[in-house]
Amino acid sequence: MPTSPPTLAVYVIQRLADLGLDKVFGVPGDYSFPIDDAVETVPGVDWVVSANELNAAYAADGYARLKGAAILTVTYGVGELSALNGVMGAKAHRLPVFVVVGEPSTRIQRSGLVTHHTLGDGVYGNFFALSSAAAGASAQLTPQNAVQEVERVISEALRLSMPGYFLIPEDLAGLPIIGEPVKGRPLSELTAVRSDPQELKAALAALGQVLAPATRVVALPTFLVARYGAVPELEAFLAQTGVSFATLPMDKGILDESHPAYLGMYNGRASTPGVQAWVEEADVVLDLGGVILEDLNSASWSSDLSRTRHVVIGPDFVKVGAKVFVQTALRDVLAGLASVCPVFEGAPTRPRPALLPASGAPTDAILNQSFYPRLQAMLRPRDLLVCETGGCNVHLPGMLLPEGVGYAADTLWGAIGWGTPAVLGLALGDASRRVVLVTGDGAHQISANELGVMGRYGVKPVIFVLNNGVYGIEIVLSETGHGYDDLAPWRYAELPYAMGCDRWLSKVVRTVDELDQAIAQLQTWDGAAYIEVVIPASESVPQPHAVEDNTYKLDTPS
Amino acid sequence: MPTSPPTLAVYVIQRLADLGLDKVFGVPGDYSFPIDDAVETVPGVDWVVSANELNAAYAADGYARLKGAAILTVTYGVGELSALNGVMGAKAHRLPVFVVVGEPSTRIQRSGLVTHHTLGDGVYGNFFALSSAAAGASAQLTPQNAVQEVERVISEALRLSMPGYFLIPEDLAGLPIIGEPVKGRPLSELTAVRSDPQELKAALAALGQVLAPATRVVALPTFLVARYGAVPELEAFLAQTGVSFATLPMDKGILDESHPAYLGMYNGRASTPGVQAWVEEADVVLDLGGVILEDLNSASWSSDLSRTRHVVIGPDFVKVGAKVFVQTALRDVLAGLASVCPVFEGAPTRPRPALLPASGAPTDAILNQSFYPRLQAMLRPRDLLVCETGGCNVHLPGMLLPEGVGYAADTLWGAIGWGTPAVLGLALGDASRRVVLVTGDGAHQISANELGVMGRYGVKPVIFVLNNGVYGIEIVLSETGHGYDDLAPWRYAELPYAMGCDRWLSKVVRTVDELDQAIAQLQTWDGAAYIEVVIPASESVPQPHAVEDNTYKLDTPS
Repeated sequence: MPTSPPTLAVYVIQRLADLGLDKVFGVPGDYSFPIDDAVETVPGVDWVVSANELNAAYAADGYARLKGAAILTVTYGVGELSALNGVMGAKAHRLPVFVVVGEPSTRIQRSGLVTHHTLGDGVYGNFFALSSAAAGASAQLTPQNAVQEVERVISEALRLSMPGYFLIPEDLAGLPIIGEPVKGRPLSELTAVRSDPQELKAALAALGQVLAPATRVVALPTFLVARYGAVPELEAFLAQTGVSFATLPMDKGILDESHPAYLGMYNGRASTPGVQAWVEEADVVLDLGGVILEDLNSASWSSDLSRTRHVVIGPDFVKVGAKVFVQTALRDVLAGLASVCPVFEGAPTRPRPALLPASGAPTDAILNQSFYPRLQAMLRPRDLLVCETGGCNVHLPGMLLPEGVGYAADTLWGAIGWGTPAVLGLALGDASRRVVLVTGDGAHQISANELGVMGRYGVKPVIFVLNNGVYGIEIVLSETGHGYDDLAPWRYAELPYAMGCDRWLSKVVRTVDELDQAIAQLQTWDGAAYIEVVIPASESVPQPHAVEDNTYKLDTPS
Repeated sequence: MPTSPPTLAVYVIQRLADLGLDKVFGVPGDYSFPIDDAVETVPGVDWVVSANELNAAYAADGYARLKGAAILTVTYGVGELSALNGVMGAKAHRLPVFVVVGEPSTRIQRSGLVTHHTLGDGVYGNFFALSSAAAGASAQLTPQNAVQEVERVISEALRLSMPGYFLIPEDLAGLPIIGEPVKGRPLSELTAVRSDPQELKAALAALGQVLAPATRVVALPTFLVARYGAVPELEAFLAQTGVSFATLPMDKGILDESHPAYLGMYNGRASTPGVQAWVEEADVVLDLGGVILEDLNSASWSSDLSRTRHVVIGPDFVKVGAKVFVQTALRDVLAGLASVCPVFEGAPTRPRPALLPASGAPTDAILNQSFYPRLQAMLRPRDLLVCETGGCNVHLPGMLLPEGVGYAADTLWGAIGWGTPAVLGLALGDASRRVVLVTGDGAHQISANELGVMGRYGVKPVIFVLNNGVYGIEIVLSETGHGYDDLAPWRYAELPYAMGCDRWLSKVVRTVDELDQAIAQLQTWDGAAYIEVVIPASESVPQPHAVEDNTYKLDTPS
């Protein structure tokens, strides 16, 4: 006996949940109520209501980093435009965040009525192009086109590893779909990119020609290796060949940094000592995914791969010299790469990253050089370290992660405020891991209202707020003395209580001793913790191995 | 002796400051530093650094409502996209908010380098179209085109009463402009729309033909009368002719509601008693600006002007029956209108709005019917009442404002979260007025981080946060019982202290007596005040004269 078909809203949410997603991030709102209700109806997914839409988008970004994709639902106009910056960031960082938006009913539209959340001009569809700009694929759904369009947007978003956008009129959302519903499969069973066998074979042959005579091969695995589900193939390749690897700041944490083949950070002149030369003088650099030599990912464009043989194995192409092979899945190329690569045995004399030396007397103020070594020492296996954009982004990329510690940052998009809500999504993406956030105060003020959401949903992060009273990174990039870099003088440690986060450990530390005590307390604390770390504003100066010049200075004619 | 020309960044800020604007709202950031610095350099304008870009856009919106325009500066990509929803709201509410954004230098662009705040694809200009969609006019500035383009964007933004958008490459921002700088004049001296004399004359003649035989004429002045600087002409017209007027929710506060000719709210079936019939049975309705019969502005499209002679006097056109006259400035038409309009003498028998009756025993919980009358009674002349979107938007539009009290709401765009940051802009737009905000808790959680900014800049609002623990308006529009309408349980009254707002009166009131005491305390308090008003969630039900049905229900096939 046939069951009745699901409504359009239920179908979309169900089809996305089929990917293995168990949370829906967002803010409910009129025009989206059928979608909001569907989230309650569909088994296996739960609502996570953020304080605002931008925070919800950042939370979805965090979740997608662990789960491979995420669902975000917001309302028409006001909701989707508020979320847009976060979704665009997900596009930059190649995260399939599926955005589901309800729009005014077709009854309203066809009646020629004017409603709220519009420009008052009776025009609908003003925002479709804007939201679509942040997506890799988008669709306006109806009961009739749903089966086809949902499959198209999902597969294209996964192929591109970019957001997908669905717009659903409120009245149509409640109608049953027309056609046979598709029962989807979890992401782990899907193949985002499929290879053409001939192109794959030719690509591997070309790679083999380049690799055969090489005496030093260095891999630069990018975050796209994770996005395209090829980490197991990468690990197997490294194990089989003995090829060593370095990571750029944007790709940090793609593999365990305790891996014996890990060289350290490749970041132009700010690289781990010895790594820049080791990489740039290699015979072949295997660029796995396509490194992005963005300013913050190359110490202001001081990386230079021109002297080495720079081979790119992209998500769906391979570039070897002047030859480009197409329709070659990164995972398939990695799976075949060991068969065409020499084996490098023994432990070569190569750079190895080191732990940071601790410093600071107990009564000293807390400086960068006393904070970061202690942070490094307190991390536990399976912790996930989250680096907000800002001053911490100068210090953390080069810090060696202890065994089993993961890492997330917004290096490319670089939106301050991403970190705090991203923690929510990361913590919900894998409840078995402790999420440790380091954020500056300026970035935290942007999105601190998400703390209350963490409290509500019982998320237990460890949050370090570096309170120096200023937008420190802007001082680093520009110059000191501008009033506009000063911040409102928040009492950060009061925030969790004010936002209803009960049973959080919340405290202010001003000296090295207080920091040590707080960290000691964390050893036995399994709840959420919020540590306001007061540091001098004068610490907003790049340290050795930080970015030494920057885009601002580049603009000065020389 | 010629002085050296200003830099491009200084020129733009100076030229906007010339309009009579003394604040620049925004968040500083890389690529925008030359602009950020220019704000410090240009005399007469001061930085107002918001907690985030969306809040900054809302603050600019509030400021523009009082000052006629506003300046907003944010950075490339991450900043402008975060602000976009607020700027789009300013477009909906026809506010010339000038958005000034710095982009990566042309040196970076022409070098083919990839930088942060991009999609990593080496493409620049990805966001120009998105930001431009929220503007009436936009330009990419260079030293060479600045003089011409700045004048064009300013005059077009003022003509349309919509935002203007300027994008300035970081390196060009620091170069001197090429050409003769324009010294602008204050908005009060400018004419946004100029009339064609023949069209104006013909329009007035046509209006006269319709008005001459009329025995009842009702004016519906819209907020565009204020946007186009025609309030004095409107007041003179009413005084000369005795024509009575009503206002729609969106237009509330355009004139003093103690005006003898004020009928009350025209809002379909939710109108002030008697007003719907009075308006809809008039011989002529003078629609001043063009009413927008949006759902929340017409009690779900229950306004009906089809039986009356509905004449539209738009910003730059007049529509009388089938005739449309163009290039006619609203201000000029209003100035000439009394000469073609009959005079209505004496006090006609017509509806008059009434004060709300107080209710509630001292130990009672605080209900809508006990809160709103007390709010009405506590208002003082020149207060500015700000109504956040949400449950308060059901109660406040119909509430008679005491003499001299102004009003601001986001009726059309309806973005929850607008209210709190808008208070910052309104308070800075006229420091001599007390700004009183009524906000729901859900809306407040979206943007409460702006409280710290108010504290920093010494703004002294009176804020009532109606804490019912839920998104009440969503319950009103949808139905009860959805977990997604529940909010994180903030302790609101703790927020000002946590966000560094010293010397704020902050308290929680749970009973009518406590509310009375708090209001009594406000009589002699001249600082900022923050009153958390705990009300039962069950109060999230429309009251008499509220919206009785809604867009959601319209979607149910009947």
